[in-house]
Amino acid sequence: MVCLKDARVAIVGLGLMGGSLAGALRKRGACREVRGVARREETVEEAMRRGFINAGTCDLAEGVEQADLILLATPVRTILELIPQVGSLAPAGCLLMDLGSTKARIVEAMEALPSHLQAVGGHPMCGKEVSGLEAAEADLYQGTTFVLTPLQRTSSEALMLARELVEAVGARPLLMDAERHDRLVAAVSHLPYLLSLGLVATAEEVAAEDELVWELAASGFRDTSRLAASDVTMMLDILLTNRQAVGETLSRFAHQLNAIADLLEADDEEGLRSLMGRVQKRRERMFR
Amino acid sequence: MVCLKDARVAIVGLGLMGGSLAGALRKRGACREVRGVARREETVEEAMRRGFINAGTCDLAEGVEQADLILLATPVRTILELIPQVGSLAPAGCLLMDLGSTKARIVEAMEALPSHLQAVGGHPMCGKEVSGLEAAEADLYQGTTFVLTPLQRTSSEALMLARELVEAVGARPLLMDAERHDRLVAAVSHLPYLLSLGLVATAEEVAAEDELVWELAASGFRDTSRLAASDVTMMLDILLTNRQAVGETLSRFAHQLNAIADLLEADDEEGLRSLMGRVQKRRERMFR
Repeated sequence: MVCLKDARVAIVGLGLMGGSLAGALRKRGACREVRGVARREETVEEAMRRGFINAGTCDLAEGVEQADLILLATPVRTILELIPQVGSLAPAGCLLMDLGSTKARIVEAMEALPSHLQAVGGHPMCGKEVSGLEAAEADLYQGTTFVLTPLQRTSSEALMLARELVEAVGARPLLMDAERHDRLVAAVSHLPYLLSLGLVATAEEVAAEDELVWELAASGFRDTSRLAASDVTMMLDILLTNRQAVGETLSRFAHQLNAIADLLEADDEEGLRSLMGRVQKRRERMFR
Repeated sequence: MVCLKDARVAIVGLGLMGGSLAGALRKRGACREVRGVARREETVEEAMRRGFINAGTCDLAEGVEQADLILLATPVRTILELIPQVGSLAPAGCLLMDLGSTKARIVEAMEALPSHLQAVGGHPMCGKEVSGLEAAEADLYQGTTFVLTPLQRTSSEALMLARELVEAVGARPLLMDAERHDRLVAAVSHLPYLLSLGLVATAEEVAAEDELVWELAASGFRDTSRLAASDVTMMLDILLTNRQAVGETLSRFAHQLNAIADLLEADDEEGLRSLMGRVQKRRERMFR
């Protein structure tokens, strides 16, 4: 297997994640070539104009031809459709990798790839609530954690190349199995999205009785509801491919919120103060 | 009643909100004098050093002496304790106002003030998750909504002076009664805090089984959990003086979250897409 420096990289999907990855590789001169594959011609042109890719196409076969490393950077269910297609098009010895936000279903699909291909799951822990190539930036991956979920069949050379790519874009590789990944992101990524969704839905309900509620929404509401602006197709794919873990996490959260409501209902000042103080300290330790 | 330009303003509490208000008044030369009252001598000194106040003291009686306008800028339950004290100290004809985050209990306490004093409730819809004078800035109020909750006994001259103050610091006055205010902020301010609290508590529960969860917490988690870092005493006072409205809002939210969990459990793609799309559009309209 080639090293990254000599690799021809094909990126399928030139949205926020794929576009930013292409930009990062090109900016750092990390590989021999970055080829982009997009659905729309204008996206290819825009990626060329921004210097994110060396060449681009709307044709998947042309895009992955001669590639040493193929990255699937579309919503999760599109990745699931692309895996068998790319499997029949990709040259022997090529490494297939993805940037999907859930991993168990993707790794399962990768297990069925022809044996002359290598494969590894990937999930960079970065993003924005805005999507599309317009929002892409070469520094998006800088300093972030980039999960790699190897398959049983993943060779150590293939994993090495994946790690090289992660480090080349400024991220820290973190290896774990796909199920564990999906369980953990349900709590720190999918749950925040659903809370944000439920918050705006609740405010809408209040607004139906009293429109003035929107006038009172300030920065606290803005930040807590930010994820509700996320791309719907992307989030829907995430939720529907991680239903069980998300459902379990929702139950856990509901339990926590109930406990808070009970303390409040009981006017239990010391109980509330203790919970609030513990959580505040934890939050402060995380991001300062 | 004097106009703001000629008024001697006393601000009791020189934390984030009081300090920023003092700074805004002084920066714009909006009034004759700003006097600060703080519990600790160092806070007074720091406010003097930053040019936020013309004079300062740790003695409440000295602070409010000769004041035309007194602003209470402490946590809500401290405001409730201060109102009768200030009531017996403030000069006749003076306007008492506050910056507390809940209004019904405060307005109720103000109703009992001696009749030679004027009073109005206030709540600027701005803040930060960090507290204290260090975080104060003269532009904090710029462009924000500043709720005023007049009492039955509030004269039109007193309300005029309060409006003048709000506009002087760059905010937009919004008049409403205290109960309505408390009901609305329960949805757009107290609920986001509690969700943020519940989110971190849930992640802690997951972390007790798998520490790696913190490694996967990215910007979505950071923003959705930001309010959990809020000052505990301030938030506790808010929750305990708005228990009923907060309890009702929590029920509404729980209902919304249940509906989302049901759609997910039922694999109802169209139902989820419709809800997510509607909420996304609403969120985009609010903050862009």
